[in-house]
Parts: sequence; C-alpha cells; structure tokens
Amino acid sequence: MSADEIERLIRGALDTGIWSEQQVEDLLGHAAPLTVNVGVSGRHVHLSQEDLEALFGAGYELTPIKELSQPGQFAAKETVTLVGPKGVIERVRVLGPVRPSTQVEVLRGDTFKLGVPACVRMSGKLEGTPGITLAGPHGTVALPQGVIVAARHIHMTCDEAAKRGLHDGQVVSIAFGGERGGRLDNVVVRANNTSALDCHIDTEEANAFGIKNGSVVEIIK
Amino acid sequence: MSADEIERLIRGALDTGIWSEQQVEDLLGHAAPLTVNVGVSGRHVHLSQEDLEALFGAGYELTPIKELSQPGQFAAKETVTLVGPKGVIERVRVLGPVRPSTQVEVLRGDTFKLGVPACVRMSGKLEGTPGITLAGPHGTVALPQGVIVAARHIHMTCDEAAKRGLHDGQVVSIAFGGERGGRLDNVVVRANNTSALDCHIDTEEANAFGIKNGSVVEIIK
Repeated sequence: MSADEIERLIRGALDTGIWSEQQVEDLLGHAAPLTVNVGVSGRHVHLSQEDLEALFGAGYELTPIKELSQPGQFAAKETVTLVGPKGVIERVRVLGPVRPSTQVEVLRGDTFKLGVPACVRMSGKLEGTPGITLAGPHGTVALPQGVIVAARHIHMTCDEAAKRGLHDGQVVSIAFGGERGGRLDNVVVRANNTSALDCHIDTEEANAFGIKNGSVVEIIK
Repeated sequence: MSADEIERLIRGALDTGIWSEQQVEDLLGHAAPLTVNVGVSGRHVHLSQEDLEALFGAGYELTPIKELSQPGQFAAKETVTLVGPKGVIERVRVLGPVRPSTQVEVLRGDTFKLGVPACVRMSGKLEGTPGITLAGPHGTVALPQGVIVAARHIHMTCDEAAKRGLHDGQVVSIAFGGERGGRLDNVVVRANNTSALDCHIDTEEANAFGIKNGSVVEIIK
C-alpha cells in the first residue's frame, strides 16, 4: 500500500466515523519514534567513605557543587588524580554521594594513557576490572579493581519503560541523524523507580556523533 | 527456500556440472559482505612550505619517521603547538609531504579545549573553517582558516570501487559488531588512482566503537 493510499484509508475511516480523531492520535502516538535525551558523562570517580577519608582526611564529607540528572546524585568540588602504570590524569571529578565501592569511570582513550585494560562494564559490575592508584590531598589509595569504561545505558522509571514497551535489562540501539549520524548498539535499559529518564553515553561516543548534553536520540528496539 | 535447500541445490548444480567451482566462488564473492580495514587518525597538521618555514626556519624540510597507509604520505619528526582562544594543545604531529594549504585536523573534543567551532569537513574543503595559531621552534603562524574535524571516509582505487559496486563521492555507512558495536553513517567513498584501500575515522570515533587500527568494518551501501 502506498503512503497516499494509507492516508486516503485513514481519512475515509475518520470521515465515515469508523475511527475517532482520538483513536487515530492514540495509534500515531504508539507509532511515533521512541526518543530520549542524552546525558554525556566525562571521566569521573565514585568513592567509598573509607577511600574518601584516605584521600581527603578522617571524617571528610563531599561538597556538592552541581545536581546531576539522577535524583540525589551530584558533582562534588573534590577531584582526585588517577595514577596508572603508564600515565597520570589529574583533576578527575568526584561524584557523590559515597557508594559501597569505589568505581573509576574513564574514557577508552584514557585507558591507553593510563596503561590499563579497557573493560566496558555496567556501573557496579567491578569483578575482573583493572585496579589503579588514586591520589588526593591527604593520601593515596591503591585500588585492586574498579576501573571501567561505562557501558552505554538508558535510565528510566519502570512506568516509563512499560509505557514505551521496554523492560529493565533490555538491549536496544540508539540512532542520531546529522553529519556525524549513526547508531550505537548494545544500549542497556535500566528501569527502576529511583531513575530519571536519561540516556548515558560518554564523551568519546558523543563526540563521534557530534551530539551533546540534551541532544535527542531515537531508541530502536 | 531454507538454507538447507539452497545448499542442496548448489551442491547438486556442482555435482552435475551445471556450475563450476569458480562460478560459485565468483557468486559468493559478490554476495559476501563488503569489508574494509580501519585506519585511525589522531589530531595532526599538514603544512604548506611557507608555513613550515615560518615555524621551523627558512629552507626547512620535514624529516619522515613513519610511512602512512596512503602512498607517499608520512608522519614527520616535527610537531607544533596549537594555540586557540581558550586553550593550547602541544606536540601535534606534522604529516608530510607539504601541501598547497595548511590544514589542522583535530578531534571534536579538541575544538572545545581550543575554543574553536567544530567544522566537520573533507580534507581540502577549508572555506569557512575556523583559524588558529600554530607555534613552532622558529616562530608562529596565525592561520585565517584551516581547522577541521575530518569527515569519515574510505580511500580506494577506482578499480577497487568498481569491483565493489561503489563510486567516488558515494555516501555509505560502516558497521562494527562487538560490545560497543554500531554504525557510522555519512562515510564518503574517495576513489582515485593514487589511493590505498583504507577507511579513515578519528580517535574518538574509534574509541566510541572500541576498534583500533586494522580492525575490519562492514561497508553498508
């Protein structure tokens, strides 16, 4: 059927009262492309309270300077230095609040600079990842593991997922248009009731596609 | 027809001498996915003889240290400093031989660091691109234009293009598998008789997909 024929059919169904305008809108709503805003993550560190105190001093607390898209998460004033076997990266932002385990999220390019393997992982999946040394104003911490290249993912609430026909753990693709257009596969849906809708990719992924914080991408199931 | 049935058909055609092994190979060759090796470009500079002399001294000549994939092209010993309105990038490799116009190829991330607009362009298309200052051991050059983020492209000879059913200027996509798999669109075929087969993407594009120099990608028409 051609687009013309489909339009004539829908128009006819409306004109003769077979369908209501609302029904057509509902149908088109479901057919409309699924989209999501992009949040771009640079390299950053999540610290445990123990490692925070080793780096910044006993009883130290993070100083929030900016709220992040996920409820309760913030960028802190504090930064640390990553010390790898091959190189050093200074002024890496600490995000808060503190977590049970310290996790260092770097770009793939950073792993070459630091001299550690690039392990693409979802947040929290630290088993088998390389370690690194963190340096702060009060001391250093030699992490046995915890350096990851963050796997791209989409945060959403369970309701938002259900509304879009998605579920927690589903693997989708995201697509962008434009002069650096393309598609990223293996994007994991992370649905839970403490998440705000946001698609997280890292700086290199964003730059490869010429997109920035707040750009809109299409979700492809 | 199922894969089994097709295989029985081909096997039968071979056994009874309807097709030769060569004919089947030729057919499969055409049906096999089009692939190409990837060459990853970091930031680099092509200099005019005039700018080379301004930066390194009168009568200066580049010192080749490594051949590149394209015939006659080489990485030189020399490096320059990029000085933008917001920041500086040191030790940027000069590629040779000299060209009619100086061209500075940076990553999109670099454009933020330097403070210049990101113009995605094919090599040589410098009109309307931002300028920058180059600094060398002998002096500096204030370029009125010439800073580009290289548009992804595939070099090949005209014969190789014809054999693959491609032509100069054609826009294709390239696809990769793996944990950071995906697709880059708007990849321009550059076919001429001085090119070696190589798909050029930049460091950020390569890192976004977790691929490196020599990785194989599929060309999608």
